[in-house]
Amino acid sequence: MTVTTVELIGNPRAGSRTRTLADAVVTELASHLERAGNPLSRPTVLDLAELVGVSFGPAAARPDAPVDDPFAPVRAARLLVVATPAYKGTYTGLLKIFLDQLGPGDLAGVIALPVAVAGAPAHADRTATSLRDLLSELGAEATIPPLTALESRLAAPVEAAAEWVAAHAGQLGELLARTPARGNLRLHHSR
Amino acid sequence: MTVTTVELIGNPRAGSRTRTLADAVVTELASHLERAGNPLSRPTVLDLAELVGVSFGPAAARPDAPVDDPFAPVRAARLLVVATPAYKGTYTGLLKIFLDQLGPGDLAGVIALPVAVAGAPAHADRTATSLRDLLSELGAEATIPPLTALESRLAAPVEAAAEWVAAHAGQLGELLARTPARGNLRLHHSR
Repeated sequence: MTVTTVELIGNPRAGSRTRTLADAVVTELASHLERAGNPLSRPTVLDLAELVGVSFGPAAARPDAPVDDPFAPVRAARLLVVATPAYKGTYTGLLKIFLDQLGPGDLAGVIALPVAVAGAPAHADRTATSLRDLLSELGAEATIPPLTALESRLAAPVEAAAEWVAAHAGQLGELLARTPARGNLRLHHSR
Repeated sequence: MTVTTVELIGNPRAGSRTRTLADAVVTELASHLERAGNPLSRPTVLDLAELVGVSFGPAAARPDAPVDDPFAPVRAARLLVVATPAYKGTYTGLLKIFLDQLGPGDLAGVIALPVAVAGAPAHADRTATSLRDLLSELGAEATIPPLTALESRLAAPVEAAAEWVAAHAGQLGELLARTPARGNLRLHHSR
């Protein structure tokens, strides 16, 4: 069955290198998992820089490319790749303010893959860990090792992505086989 | 010298109990520190629910009570009380997206007091710790023990505040005497 795949990008700048890295990991994963019998859907990309408008002063703010319900694809995902740069040592406020709109169990049945970009290894690790904790808090399955990348590696995003995929795609495949998809989970909970 | 005091409230609802608790701690602190020769200024209250507008869809957002530069009082504070409810086990996205606008050293010379409200002790502690880390990352002096309060105690905010003040106001007074104020720090750095 096709794995419904969503990329959630928390960089406040549209078209960021954070997004390029998330795109690369999904492309690499799709190629690997297709061979293993777990084809990924073409990903829905939610670039929060374009979907959320924020005003810190008298001027009104409107998203550059708004959609009616940007939360729906996140709730419907089977594989959710959540990518953020490190801001002040952790995920961006833009990403948190978006995820704060979800309820505690809204990501049950979703397999989450954190992707963190930072200038220094300690910041990348801390960002990935806090992002994993946040996704767990929302009910997501977040046991797969995050992809962390130093900014210095972003000139070659495909290589960084391929390295992670070579190391962890097998584990992700097993997780997809083992954990119940959202539909099954709901059925179970409603008994 | 009067201690320039600012309250930064990260609850997305205006007039929150988070704010009431922050108000109470500043009032109790002012009374204690005045006796110790460290009078606090009347606090500037930045209630982010009123100062930041966020749109997740086609409609434009505008703050309910916008000001031209809500960051200026934060940078000018000597004592910064930062209060947040726990959302998904940590500070709110609203607070983070606001603090993300500051530069790495922007809170140098500021003494920060985290205030965290949560339904469960583990969430309160985790929120206070992550908030302290965030404020440190911005350069603030954040060594004073945070005030954590369970939601069940918010019916009596003055008691919760007075308890913290009785335990820690002395330490805060020493910190005010010992750490250089912002002006001194800048002079030092410019040598």
